[in-house]
Amino acid sequence: MTAAQKGPAIILVEPQMGENIGAAARAMLNFGLTDLRLVSPRDGWPNERAVAMAAGAGVVIETTQVFDNTEAAIADLQHVYAATARPRDMIKHVATPKGAAEELKTFESAGNACGILFGKESSGLSSDDITLSNTIITVPLNPDFSSINLAQAVLLVAYEYFLVSDESPEKILRNEERPATKEELGHLFGRIERELDARGYFDNMMPRKPVILKNMRNMFQRFGLMESDIRAFQGIIKGISLKKKTGNDDQ
Amino acid sequence: MTAAQKGPAIILVEPQMGENIGAAARAMLNFGLTDLRLVSPRDGWPNERAVAMAAGAGVVIETTQVFDNTEAAIADLQHVYAATARPRDMIKHVATPKGAAEELKTFESAGNACGILFGKESSGLSSDDITLSNTIITVPLNPDFSSINLAQAVLLVAYEYFLVSDESPEKILRNEERPATKEELGHLFGRIERELDARGYFDNMMPRKPVILKNMRNMFQRFGLMESDIRAFQGIIKGISLKKKTGNDDQ
Repeated sequence: MTAAQKGPAIILVEPQMGENIGAAARAMLNFGLTDLRLVSPRDGWPNERAVAMAAGAGVVIETTQVFDNTEAAIADLQHVYAATARPRDMIKHVATPKGAAEELKTFESAGNACGILFGKESSGLSSDDITLSNTIITVPLNPDFSSINLAQAVLLVAYEYFLVSDESPEKILRNEERPATKEELGHLFGRIERELDARGYFDNMMPRKPVILKNMRNMFQRFGLMESDIRAFQGIIKGISLKKKTGNDDQ
Repeated sequence: MTAAQKGPAIILVEPQMGENIGAAARAMLNFGLTDLRLVSPRDGWPNERAVAMAAGAGVVIETTQVFDNTEAAIADLQHVYAATARPRDMIKHVATPKGAAEELKTFESAGNACGILFGKESSGLSSDDITLSNTIITVPLNPDFSSINLAQAVLLVAYEYFLVSDESPEKILRNEERPATKEELGHLFGRIERELDARGYFDNMMPRKPVILKNMRNMFQRFGLMESDIRAFQGIIKGISLKKKTGNDDQ
């Protein structure tokens, strides 16, 4: 069974409480999801409290994968969502759980692997993690009390996913093409950064370098790059980084 | 404020774990509900674990009412729902959380007071309690794992209720940004082409040059570039086209 067939992966980034991991696992299985991934869980793994709270969802706990960082956890995925309040400093597509569920079904019917990032209990997802996502999922919440429990957030997203009937009208993305994986995107980012570094592009703006790179990553995430786009960009970068044929190389 | 104005009452019948009462209170306030009622909570009331789990939803905990029996807890209500799996031995209307939420809004706009019964963790609502209700709410669940946590069930019902009132459109991409003009896009394409030409990128693939450039233009059109994206790309191209700081310039 491929990732696309079993529903989106649920990725908890640095979860703090085993109880919440277990409750999330239970909520997942309530709605048929089984692919749980953890990035650096605070109390290690396996976790007894998670097992106790999973209450019958052992199949999810037993197959949970643990990763050192978010990039590794999503390397095989093609569409990644970040469950978070709308960030003010990034341009990102924003979807409700229902809207995201409909998109997920569409992507999965095209054979694409998807996942949803959830942040730690105390502070949610980091800006860097959000940057790794294509789209933000924002749960509509009481503006006067918008602090939602981690497992509750997982539940709502899984619930909406479950509600989108498999028989619902097909909006199939018919493409010979396949979306780029996050790993391919990561290689592209790395290439661009290395080429810029090699030329001293950031020398006069060092304090801003991380912001510039983050904005660039967000921009590419938003584009929905296909695998062929990655190759096109690699070609463009290779071409522009060549030595000029004549004259000097200064701009 | 009347019951009708503040949304449905959430009535937990013989809840066993304080943690679940607190989590339910938090879930309620996440979606603007505040009228929590308990029927014979196992560990009495107030309950320290409930307070801890409510995590900021103190306003719900502090105004929680406790009753000796279900009849007393719903005496002032006009429409009562029972959250439970469909009972086989009763003829009752059955609604989904979403369907019930729409009905609730209708009743409340007519000034009717409503409430929703949730049963104890171990065994749910008794047949007698279900009998007290007008309508059953059944959450669509994975038939192979339909045991849902009490607070999670409260959350889903409160969420659907909130969505009915929430007038925010499904997917809005709000930002200060403006899409790039076609002129700006044209300048970007021209720049990329010039940089590639200056480096002889197309020298060994001249017949294919027009196709490659057309594919590139199509790719960028598909991305929906914003004005700031154009500037970002101009920066990347400028950076990569600089002369390398050290070593030779060959690839």
